Amino acid sequence: MHEAEPRVKLWLERRGLIILSEYRVRLLEHIAETGSLAQAAERMGLSYRRAWGKIKEIEANLGAPLVRSQKGGAGGGRTRLTGEGARLIEAYRRFEKAVEADVRKEYGAAFGCLSS
Amino acid sequence: MHEAEPRVKLWLERRGLIILSEYRVRLLEHIAETGSLAQAAERMGLSYRRAWGKIKEIEANLGAPLVRSQKGGAGGGRTRLTGEGARLIEAYRRFEKAVEADVRKEYGAAFGCLSS
Repeated sequence: MHEAEPRVKLWLERRGLIILSEYRVRLLEHIAETGSLAQAAERMGLSYRRAWGKIKEIEANLGAPLVRSQKGGAGGGRTRLTGEGARLIEAYRRFEKAVEADVRKEYGAAFGCLSS
Repeated sequence: MHEAEPRVKLWLERRGLIILSEYRVRLLEHIAETGSLAQAAERMGLSYRRAWGKIKEIEANLGAPLVRSQKGGAGGGRTRLTGEGARLIEAYRRFEKAVEADVRKEYGAAFGCLSS
């Protein structure tokens, strides 16, 4: 298996519905970084409406609020992650990083003897 | 993360092209079991032409032959895996099984403390 490399895609489901994935976690991270759903949407190349819908979908599938919006004030409203939202994305990135290391190790164990 | 479960999709690439995946390995396993590309295609719900094309694509991306066809004889030709083909699918299933176990373990480590 000269030059081959393992690839992995991860996600979390609840009752058959996706709750977290790389894409969803990235959207939440952009909200955490910018404090703004509009800016997070722009960074992801999504319309505001679509980003908002995605957040509501994740919350519905998860059964818990992940963001909290504050309206008004100078410069308009802000959107922040809830404590649970912040803990979930942190746990997801830890999970993802650990699995990626495992995948490289298991690939070597399973295919190493077939290398040419 | 009550009731949530981790999901994983694996594949192998070489120079940016897919060489093995669950789908591709299943096609090769059906060839091994039936000794027939026509029967393997039928089991996968593929046309013979499409199954043949998929095998040729995998071989091209991998740079090695995975199946060998024998023409003629009573009942028509047969298709078998090469030694390399058989070793690859065996290694792939070992790799996949090991990663699936790792994913469950890492999920527990990363999200266990968030369970409700």
